[in-house]
Amino acid sequence: MKFFTENEPTSPINARYPVTRVLYRGRSKYQKILVFDSPFHGRVLALDDIVQLTTREEHFYHELLVHPILQAHAQPRNVLIIGGGDGGTMREVMKYPSIENAVQCELDQQVVAVAKEYFPKLAVGYKDKRAQLRFEDGEKLLRASGKLWDAIILDLTDPIGPAKPLFERPFYKLCAEHLAPDGFLSAQTESLHFHADTVKSVMRALRGLFKHIELVTVPLAMYPGNWWTFTVASRTLDPKIARNNFCPPTRVYSRDDHAWFFLPKGVREKVLA
Amino acid sequence: MKFFTENEPTSPINARYPVTRVLYRGRSKYQKILVFDSPFHGRVLALDDIVQLTTREEHFYHELLVHPILQAHAQPRNVLIIGGGDGGTMREVMKYPSIENAVQCELDQQVVAVAKEYFPKLAVGYKDKRAQLRFEDGEKLLRASGKLWDAIILDLTDPIGPAKPLFERPFYKLCAEHLAPDGFLSAQTESLHFHADTVKSVMRALRGLFKHIELVTVPLAMYPGNWWTFTVASRTLDPKIARNNFCPPTRVYSRDDHAWFFLPKGVREKVLA
Repeated sequence: MKFFTENEPTSPINARYPVTRVLYRGRSKYQKILVFDSPFHGRVLALDDIVQLTTREEHFYHELLVHPILQAHAQPRNVLIIGGGDGGTMREVMKYPSIENAVQCELDQQVVAVAKEYFPKLAVGYKDKRAQLRFEDGEKLLRASGKLWDAIILDLTDPIGPAKPLFERPFYKLCAEHLAPDGFLSAQTESLHFHADTVKSVMRALRGLFKHIELVTVPLAMYPGNWWTFTVASRTLDPKIARNNFCPPTRVYSRDDHAWFFLPKGVREKVLA
Repeated sequence: MKFFTENEPTSPINARYPVTRVLYRGRSKYQKILVFDSPFHGRVLALDDIVQLTTREEHFYHELLVHPILQAHAQPRNVLIIGGGDGGTMREVMKYPSIENAVQCELDQQVVAVAKEYFPKLAVGYKDKRAQLRFEDGEKLLRASGKLWDAIILDLTDPIGPAKPLFERPFYKLCAEHLAPDGFLSAQTESLHFHADTVKSVMRALRGLFKHIELVTVPLAMYPGNWWTFTVASRTLDPKIARNNFCPPTRVYSRDDHAWFFLPKGVREKVLA
């Protein structure tokens, strides 16, 4: 059996995965793409040697990026996803019958092609007529669109290279300006264990732009630092309250425990001290 | 820079730590002992090539093993610790002025000697007059003692080898019989991500012996599978309620959020499905 050793430049440890089979190895305009099978984790997608998902655990990430805000909104109709080329986020969004239109901006066409071939259970959402996939820059689309979105979801890679400006204040301001008054923003914002500085800098950058700023957290084993954060922000409504009458089937998110997924203030203050 | 690759036989991935300095490498009657420094994690203790603690994160483990039950008890006076040779658990117990007597049974004298030399901030509790450290078998002591404890804390290594019977029903029965009516049991019970079968088997083994059986969880990065569980059981009182008027200084446990550390039923059912 061979091994894949992850190389995440901002992680202090490296994870070593046993590899039973390499299914795809390529290079897009933007990044190296690798797909392999591993005995426990199932199928693994790595971009630039950084694990993006394992089929065993991807639902932890995708459910917690999406459901806290789509449950906080009474009836989300239009959603913008930036990033998320594997399709898992679109799949979760498409579970809601109230959604009329979900636009996804992904830069890397090849990641989507690889997901459609090797991760059919993730890329399934793209088949839905309400889903529009565009290979263009999310910031440009947001700037050009006169629309106010019910939800904006930032399913981005680590804040290094092209994704970096999308973790900063000017971009968050643009999001705030294009969010309906009862709309919500959800962004993956790295690990509380390994990237507390990123979490703090994102929260600082959002301050003043949104009334409510909260951290949704979930433990993952597939990312180094594992205690993953999704920063949720809203202009008017408290995201800790579930308002949606429809709750889709889920594997880890539980609407009965909606508020539990939000990191309590006392713990947040201790961990980010 | 050299690397230490963890070899945890029940873990599907291996973590690779950079090593700046090896401070101790030895072998006791029971196990291989290794102490090294790593840039991000600080000082690391590994037994049989399995990381037991890092100075950066050990408080996540020790605080959540100890405080949920010592806060649930109105005034804990006597505590039994089984395992826990590094001293972190005793340190947290000694923070409570109400404690009159804390007995710790650890088999490996050499682990304690190494902790005293290389982890002085953990082994500090042993200096307290109320702390009694005994190098003997915890099960034997429990069987011989006529005492009813306010808290029994099982700070054990993985359920392989000598620790295995201490994750099984006959031993839990012994604990239940030696716990005061308002007493609490707390046991480290592995990862929800990688060892869900262990968590389920422990919960099954406790059923019928205790009225309340709950999971305290906390995400750690220092153990593979990271979403760590502490199984808490009690004969009469609900552990989710904090009854102690004294709350010691902590770095992650927050008494204001006491109930949050207990995994909600809805999430537990989904994750252990």
